[in-house]
Amino acid sequence: MSALVLLTPTDPDGRVVDPHAPQLLVTDLGVVRGDGVFETLLAVDGRALQLDAHLDRLASSATALDLSLPDGAHWRAAIDTGLAEFARRHGNVDAVIRLVGTRGVDPAGPPTCWAYLQPVPASSREQRDRGIDVLLLDRGYSSEAASEAPWLLLGSKTISYAVNMAALRHAHRQGADDAIFVSSDRQVLEGPTSTVLIARTRDGVRELVTPLLRSGILAGTTQGALFATAQTAGWSLGYGPLTPDDLFGNNGVWLASSVRLLAPVRSVDGRAIPVSAELTSELTELLLTATRH
Amino acid sequence: MSALVLLTPTDPDGRVVDPHAPQLLVTDLGVVRGDGVFETLLAVDGRALQLDAHLDRLASSATALDLSLPDGAHWRAAIDTGLAEFARRHGNVDAVIRLVGTRGVDPAGPPTCWAYLQPVPASSREQRDRGIDVLLLDRGYSSEAASEAPWLLLGSKTISYAVNMAALRHAHRQGADDAIFVSSDRQVLEGPTSTVLIARTRDGVRELVTPLLRSGILAGTTQGALFATAQTAGWSLGYGPLTPDDLFGNNGVWLASSVRLLAPVRSVDGRAIPVSAELTSELTELLLTATRH
Repeated sequence: MSALVLLTPTDPDGRVVDPHAPQLLVTDLGVVRGDGVFETLLAVDGRALQLDAHLDRLASSATALDLSLPDGAHWRAAIDTGLAEFARRHGNVDAVIRLVGTRGVDPAGPPTCWAYLQPVPASSREQRDRGIDVLLLDRGYSSEAASEAPWLLLGSKTISYAVNMAALRHAHRQGADDAIFVSSDRQVLEGPTSTVLIARTRDGVRELVTPLLRSGILAGTTQGALFATAQTAGWSLGYGPLTPDDLFGNNGVWLASSVRLLAPVRSVDGRAIPVSAELTSELTELLLTATRH
Repeated sequence: MSALVLLTPTDPDGRVVDPHAPQLLVTDLGVVRGDGVFETLLAVDGRALQLDAHLDRLASSATALDLSLPDGAHWRAAIDTGLAEFARRHGNVDAVIRLVGTRGVDPAGPPTCWAYLQPVPASSREQRDRGIDVLLLDRGYSSEAASEAPWLLLGSKTISYAVNMAALRHAHRQGADDAIFVSSDRQVLEGPTSTVLIARTRDGVRELVTPLLRSGILAGTTQGALFATAQTAGWSLGYGPLTPDDLFGNNGVWLASSVRLLAPVRSVDGRAIPVSAELTSELTELLLTATRH
């Protein structure tokens, strides 16, 4: 169950191709050097959620890589084509849309770009329902590295995700579900594929807090959408710096991402933390309100 | 001018395919997540140089990624097939061989593996002859990170090379040819695609020095081959730690790699350093002796 749309110089708005047939050359710099960017979106009822935010972040990642990608209108057209094709094949099923742009086979030539659609994996819902156990893992970088060394591409969503995947495998081997990266100066950063979110109460005011963006993390589209609606609903908003201690003794901690949405964290490094099903429901409802309007 | 051999479960010793036809699915985790490993070798007179060392390093990188790849015998067979096909098409031309193994489309399924052959790029010889200007760039990691955080995959040759490529682009924009990474605690590490090598004289003894392996750098196959022969030829061998100051005031600095071989560094951060054409010739001759026997 999938659908694939390639954006090419001759079909800038995308062309439906067979997702089960090879489409990429082995010389594509996307696979040779992990040289490209991506976004993952959720589509509900045939509509891509937070599309503007994802396309903005895709463009911003591409800029960091000096990568010239099609503009938003072409991506939108390709996504519409993909959603129509996916619905034609599979009916009204929620979809994960992956947008990828690589440097292509020749840095001076066109990038290789596609939108790939598939159903939402069952594991996403399961982890949302039961909560997740996470490990804190050293990301190796200082929280100052992003501003001092732009070539490290911190805050850009590149397809060079081998470290993120290795961190997840390491967590799984230890019996955990996921990880939270910590900087070498012990600031809470982000999950390998998610944004960290904390709910706490200060002086009777409920507050949502997320790590500082300039610590070299990805700007979370899900966190961004939630924050916008939560503020209207009376939540106070806060931005780190957060230390590992800040993960304990609050009203709740979540890993936020586009497909799994808000996954409640039930333990950090084996130590249980408070989980509130009510808060998860309330925040997820706020998030869905945000993304559907 | 190229040749391509795919290693598959049904053709474990490799099968010649069209390098100009798409061979990879867009769902291959190699391009989706940069989840794979690679090696680049030089082939001269139809023979791959330092093949054992490259296959050992490929296997070691795969282990670091929990990636199950074909064993060395299959890679050797595929390389032989590729060299024969390349010679059949293009005659006796030196070739660059790229070996790649990705996690494939399903982590539980077979990896995607291939050997791709192409001619040696002209830029390699040119930089070897005229020397290169390099910039020192912060790699963000401490020299202790590799031992403390194995999920950072330091010392493994993964296809997640976006940062290496961004560092090279940054260097090029500043008018330099290449870069040398420095750790956050100011140790000299490696180039984005090469090993750092210094020649100096101590108490009348000529010494070749390279950074400490446990600082999280790749074990250089070219440096390894050179060291083995140089020792026999009377050179003393040294292993860092090296600081940026160690790059100045020596007999010479080179970036060593499998295809470009020894590229003499003529300036670091705009400051000229000694270049000796005689030393480059002598060391290159030692290297070629090492790799041809």
